[in-house]
Amino acid sequence: MGKGALTQSPGELRALMRSGEWTGVTAGLAPGYAQANLVALPREMAFDFLLFCQRNPKPCPLLEVLEPGCSEPRRTAPGADLRTDLPRYRIFRHGTLVEEREDILSDWRDDLVSFLLGCSFTFEAALMDAGIPLRHLEQGRGVPMYRTSLETDSAGPFTGPVVVSMRPIKSSQVPRAVQVTSRFPSVHGAPLHIGDPAAIGIEDIGRPDYGERTEILHGEVPVFWACGVTPQAVAAQCKPAFMITHSPGHMFITDKRDEELAVL
Amino acid sequence: MGKGALTQSPGELRALMRSGEWTGVTAGLAPGYAQANLVALPREMAFDFLLFCQRNPKPCPLLEVLEPGCSEPRRTAPGADLRTDLPRYRIFRHGTLVEEREDILSDWRDDLVSFLLGCSFTFEAALMDAGIPLRHLEQGRGVPMYRTSLETDSAGPFTGPVVVSMRPIKSSQVPRAVQVTSRFPSVHGAPLHIGDPAAIGIEDIGRPDYGERTEILHGEVPVFWACGVTPQAVAAQCKPAFMITHSPGHMFITDKRDEELAVL
Repeated sequence: MGKGALTQSPGELRALMRSGEWTGVTAGLAPGYAQANLVALPREMAFDFLLFCQRNPKPCPLLEVLEPGCSEPRRTAPGADLRTDLPRYRIFRHGTLVEEREDILSDWRDDLVSFLLGCSFTFEAALMDAGIPLRHLEQGRGVPMYRTSLETDSAGPFTGPVVVSMRPIKSSQVPRAVQVTSRFPSVHGAPLHIGDPAAIGIEDIGRPDYGERTEILHGEVPVFWACGVTPQAVAAQCKPAFMITHSPGHMFITDKRDEELAVL
Repeated sequence: MGKGALTQSPGELRALMRSGEWTGVTAGLAPGYAQANLVALPREMAFDFLLFCQRNPKPCPLLEVLEPGCSEPRRTAPGADLRTDLPRYRIFRHGTLVEEREDILSDWRDDLVSFLLGCSFTFEAALMDAGIPLRHLEQGRGVPMYRTSLETDSAGPFTGPVVVSMRPIKSSQVPRAVQVTSRFPSVHGAPLHIGDPAAIGIEDIGRPDYGERTEILHGEVPVFWACGVTPQAVAAQCKPAFMITHSPGHMFITDKRDEELAVL
């Protein structure tokens, strides 16, 4: 499959993932459509995790939550199957990554509750449409992410720090960046913090905890958004007996247009 | 207690409710502060009800969900007690209203999960601040509410029609009414429907299913918002073995300023 993938519909792309023809990352695929993070947990932990997401909507914006055992996300991608339609998955046992797989048909359980969480691709597209350049994308690198001193609002066993992503923005464009991302609360929304990294417990901006380093140039301000790594990091820390997630960068492509997620 | 109540703080008012000195409705109390609907259900139904609210954010906007057995809503009113700090409660057994009470100390159970849901008082204040008059308030009457042909997105046993409230708005002010209420998704948000009542299954606009009739004058359009009666009606229809709610009009007064609930 070549560059044609960029122009294929979400359904066509999911079919290629289902058949095993596409196992790569999803950045840039189906532009204009929302992509989602996947977390699947046993029913017995689902209430607390749902409550955790409800209490922390910025790092954990819910696009869809499925019934126990259900693998068809009929609200965001009718006809799709979460067990086969992502390019790559991770299986965790007691908090430890035990396997990466291209489908989870043999791992599926009838008590699994699947959570689809919004992803920053949507608001990054909106920022670029508004004429705000994003250096990590221009350089083809991963966005830098940091654990902060900000605590999530815990629920049951789920607790831990908020993880943020950082994008350097020209000071004159910061107000517009706030406006543009405020329209998309279901994909992390407005920034959590603007400016001094130390104020949120980031000691060395040059050494991200996840992703890759991004330079901050003269006249730019570091702008921090809540990051979808938060719920996965928090869930893993609880060491649930069993958990399935997407593999980093290998997201679920929904049928929802980015613009459908805007509140205004 | 006389008219002074209007100028008392949320905490002072809750103390009066706790001591039994105020048992009346809460409309007009603590202006500028958000009031909330209460639904408390046993833990075994809590996941499905939380999922129902997540799937139906317009009729069921969650302000706070408490841990099982917890009665202090520390996110919206630290120090308050949901068992005593509302003026009046309703107890349901198997879907039937069995009692009205001024506190629920003797009915409380360690497995009860309390849900606080946004209430239209907040967006009505915003409409009036924007110069949009609301007839039912001017006339001191209840807002008219209707069961519609719109179905909620069900979760487990929770299913049923969306209930809407109707306010007649001058056509020239309808766009502003949409803008103003769009800022408040956690208190029902933008209208669900504007205009023809029949299009959402309302056969006789002069005969509301709940509340009181409001006249629609020449040059006015009926504007319909999702209504907080929806989750209570849906929950009652499931006939849960046990459920506690506030008594209609007797809401929980939070410490959250209306403006804190605005998304933009």
